[in-house]
Amino acid sequence: MERKQESGFKEKVYDIIFEADTPWGKFFDVSLLIIILLSVLVVMLETVGPIQERYQNLFFVLEWVFTIIFTIEYILRLYCVYKPMKYATSFFGIVDLLAILPTYLSLFIYGTHYLVVIRALRLLRVFRIFKLGHFIKESKIITDALKASRAKITVFLFSVLLLVVIIGSIMYLIEGGQPESGFSSIPRSVYWAIVTLTTVGYGDIAPQTEIGQFFAAVVMIMGYAIIAVPTGIVSAEMVQSARAEALNTHCCQHCSREGHDNDAKFCKYCGAELRWAMEDETLPS
Amino acid sequence: MERKQESGFKEKVYDIIFEADTPWGKFFDVSLLIIILLSVLVVMLETVGPIQERYQNLFFVLEWVFTIIFTIEYILRLYCVYKPMKYATSFFGIVDLLAILPTYLSLFIYGTHYLVVIRALRLLRVFRIFKLGHFIKESKIITDALKASRAKITVFLFSVLLLVVIIGSIMYLIEGGQPESGFSSIPRSVYWAIVTLTTVGYGDIAPQTEIGQFFAAVVMIMGYAIIAVPTGIVSAEMVQSARAEALNTHCCQHCSREGHDNDAKFCKYCGAELRWAMEDETLPS
Amino acid sequence: MERKQESGFKEKVYDIIFEADTPWGKFFDVSLLIIILLSVLVVMLETVGPIQERYQNLFFVLEWVFTIIFTIEYILRLYCVYKPMKYATSFFGIVDLLAILPTYLSLFIYGTHYLVVIRALRLLRVFRIFKLGHFIKESKIITDALKASRAKITVFLFSVLLLVVIIGSIMYLIEGGQPESGFSSIPRSVYWAIVTLTTVGYGDIAPQTEIGQFFAAVVMIMGYAIIAVPTGIVSAEMVQSARAEALNTHCCQHCSREGHDNDAKFCKYCGAELRWAMEDETLPS
Amino acid sequence: MERKQESGFKEKVYDIIFEADTPWGKFFDVSLLIIILLSVLVVMLETVGPIQERYQNLFFVLEWVFTIIFTIEYILRLYCVYKPMKYATSFFGIVDLLAILPTYLSLFIYGTHYLVVIRALRLLRVFRIFKLGHFIKESKIITDALKASRAKITVFLFSVLLLVVIIGSIMYLIEGGQPESGFSSIPRSVYWAIVTLTTVGYGDIAPQTEIGQFFAAVVMIMGYAIIAVPTGIVSAEMVQSARAEALNTHCCQHCSREGHDNDAKFCKYCGAELRWAMEDETLPS
Repeated sequence: MERKQESGFKEKVYDIIFEADTPWGKFFDVSLLIIILLSVLVVMLETVGPIQERYQNLFFVLEWVFTIIFTIEYILRLYCVYKPMKYATSFFGIVDLLAILPTYLSLFIYGTHYLVVIRALRLLRVFRIFKLGHFIKESKIITDALKASRAKITVFLFSVLLLVVIIGSIMYLIEGGQPESGFSSIPRSVYWAIVTLTTVGYGDIAPQTEIGQFFAAVVMIMGYAIIAVPTGIVSAEMVQSARAEALNTHCCQHCSREGHDNDAKFCKYCGAELRWAMEDETLPS
Repeated sequence: MERKQESGFKEKVYDIIFEADTPWGKFFDVSLLIIILLSVLVVMLETVGPIQERYQNLFFVLEWVFTIIFTIEYILRLYCVYKPMKYATSFFGIVDLLAILPTYLSLFIYGTHYLVVIRALRLLRVFRIFKLGHFIKESKIITDALKASRAKITVFLFSVLLLVVIIGSIMYLIEGGQPESGFSSIPRSVYWAIVTLTTVGYGDIAPQTEIGQFFAAVVMIMGYAIIAVPTGIVSAEMVQSARAEALNTHCCQHCSREGHDNDAKFCKYCGAELRWAMEDETLPS
Repeated sequence: MERKQESGFKEKVYDIIFEADTPWGKFFDVSLLIIILLSVLVVMLETVGPIQERYQNLFFVLEWVFTIIFTIEYILRLYCVYKPMKYATSFFGIVDLLAILPTYLSLFIYGTHYLVVIRALRLLRVFRIFKLGHFIKESKIITDALKASRAKITVFLFSVLLLVVIIGSIMYLIEGGQPESGFSSIPRSVYWAIVTLTTVGYGDIAPQTEIGQFFAAVVMIMGYAIIAVPTGIVSAEMVQSARAEALNTHCCQHCSREGHDNDAKFCKYCGAELRWAMEDETLPS
Repeated sequence: MERKQESGFKEKVYDIIFEADTPWGKFFDVSLLIIILLSVLVVMLETVGPIQERYQNLFFVLEWVFTIIFTIEYILRLYCVYKPMKYATSFFGIVDLLAILPTYLSLFIYGTHYLVVIRALRLLRVFRIFKLGHFIKESKIITDALKASRAKITVFLFSVLLLVVIIGSIMYLIEGGQPESGFSSIPRSVYWAIVTLTTVGYGDIAPQTEIGQFFAAVVMIMGYAIIAVPTGIVSAEMVQSARAEALNTHCCQHCSREGHDNDAKFCKYCGAELRWAMEDETLPS
């Protein structure tokens, strides 16, 4: 009897922490979101010299408050989940652990420059909120379009990588002898090629010789055509998925399959007449 | 009787000021547009040291001329509108007030550096002209496409924000120790991440270490795929709305099928005459 | 009789100079193209200090050779055209005159720095070749798409102009007091706003204060969504025109109108049965 | 008899080296890919001063190991191919030769700065792997879209070239007199115009005068509309090819209409069974 009650409590905690459709679950998600954002803000401000000097004590206290809250949350998650080990070794499980570990480690290790920054990875926890509310559909469309074009984008990025190595090598050949030009090695030249092809253009490395500037100009003009490729890939994918969305979602009453065009009169799978075509003229938009 | 006449005058003023379809209304709109642009030009030139010194007196006179014109216009707007309070607290009401207030305040307050600039916000008044003439349809299409993709763009911008904080934190970890690198705090590193991902690339902060440059190169290549997303979203939306515009949603009364072109007079499936083509010439846009 | 012969010679010259479909016309167009490109190359190289010093005499001779060729061509054009005045005052007529005038003027006027550059405008003559060969269709598609989206792009560019003035004004307010920041006036700040929003990002002017960098970051993120708009407009237009191209070009045998969908059985204009739908199943792609 | 055996061995080698569908062929391709990437990595690291000094001997040995492997491979390719001369003079034949020649030449020629870099061109050999595995289809779609829009992109790039020469000339006129501005000749100004129009924006050359900055701002705003063109071209092409892929061009044998989905079994217009769905399962791609 007691065990069942415990199990009931466990389930309740699970619902609050992992689900978002109850009022308490929603409240939990939103407060957690705010606390994560605040704690990352504190981490960011801690690295700004003057602010850190002035609010050192406040930041120290806040950091421990956040850590204790996250620790309780982490223990609760481990407690209420059915397979604690699976959660602990999952992506979000590791991120949750990394969010609290650095503060405890800072008790033992001095000069924890790196630990400060690892705490900023808490922000990764925020990606959980995408499961929340009305953003699911939108983020699903974007990630679906990116997933569908993943193979094309991989091929594209791989070609770009080959291209920048070749461009970088040629540029090193052209500008390499110039002492002040910055093209001191092929890796640096490749870095320049990436900076130029992506149209970022810092200007920390720029060609000095006439022939170098001519070649750089050719690379930039090429970059024009190249930047059009990923945009075209994703655009085509999004147009395609927008069209698929606009398609009819009615089912055939005979074989129960959907995906018929709006102007179809007969089920394209079983040949039965589609009734809705006559009765229901208001088509889903 | 007198009241009616007054009301008639009120309506006339209203027609001239708020409507654009009468000759006087059009003339009013165009002259106001020119005056606004001139007054903003004066504000801009006032901040250019040498020009300000030379034409100080001219600018002073012009500023007061513009202010008096705008004041009269503001009072007329308050006078002829049916609900003065609603107008005064509306977006354009506040912008109209902000357009005249700074000049009057400069009589009492000395050193009105900020007031000068607020006057430049007069430019916001120009957005009114979008209700004017043949630009309505075009601006409606653009804003509709942006509105329709608002949710997607919000998700996208939010993801980019998370991404730049994480990239900035990692870059601070890599380059933070370098005294001359400029990655002196996480907020500065996040600023660099934004400058890089958006391909702006000022070059005021640039990675100095090899590992930093390698990571920066990875970020730029990533930026390639990322910049394709908003373009894809807006493109898909525009293609969709262009197609919707081109399609007619009326049904043939004989065979109940739709998808006819806007200029079709006969059903392309059964050959029956399309009735709506004659009765309803204003096609859905 | 003599007059007719003259007229025949006139027509022959006209065919060679203005038309491109005869072998001589084609030869004329291609040689003129090469001469124009060579003459512009000479103009460009003349401005490069060391090269100019070395080949001064060669450039001088070449310049006069090109000018004499262009002069003969200009006179022939005036001679063979039906309405010489209309040609002389047309866009290409003026460009043709500007291509020869500077060299003659340089005989009388010394220190013709500006005249050198005007000669570079000879390049504008090259746009004539777009009427040549198989590039017509392609350039027509691009210019058609740009023309069709001209109104939308105008609205967009106008909104961007308003936006950059407002962003520039706000940035001047934020960074204006900093002596070394470069935001010394509103026009300069507007220039910075354009450099940033278009993602060019020279880095000659960059925000120095924390709040300035924060605002700049917001502007850049905004720029992400903004750059998607013109791309979306042109993409939608091109998709639309590509689809229109794919549409059926067969005519109805009854009313002789085209533009029917590929799946149409009856003419959508007159209701007559479309014969080709049955006889000719190979549809134009 | 012996000759046949030899021929059998030849074919076996051919299958391993040139084909990728046998286990040994796949193993060969993947190991070759890894060796190529490693050898290019060594070439790149050799140009980095400090690393080169430290691992000089290791790099020397590795370089000879790679060269001997590539030499054996080159001889085998020459041996097993049916027309050795055709292979030797093909693009990949020359690249394969260039991959090994520099190392042998470095025995005779001292100070082989250029030869080092030519070895980086080994990377071109990697493009062979695109024939490998499931990337074929994806890379085919991208290259098809680029090929289909080649004519349009050529016209576009040519127009951009004309434009940057004209912009560069005008900018040279405006800023040319300024000693520190960097616009010292028309070619340099054209270089600046390319850097600006492509939104790379190094900032090594930037306008100094007010009028120069104004003109630069106009060029950047123009660049907004221009960058949309190649993106629009490629997007339209990709949308078109994605649609073509999704549509079936078979006709229903009963009502002769097409436009059926690839998974349709019955005509959606008349309900007749679609024959091709059963007979021809390999659908046109």
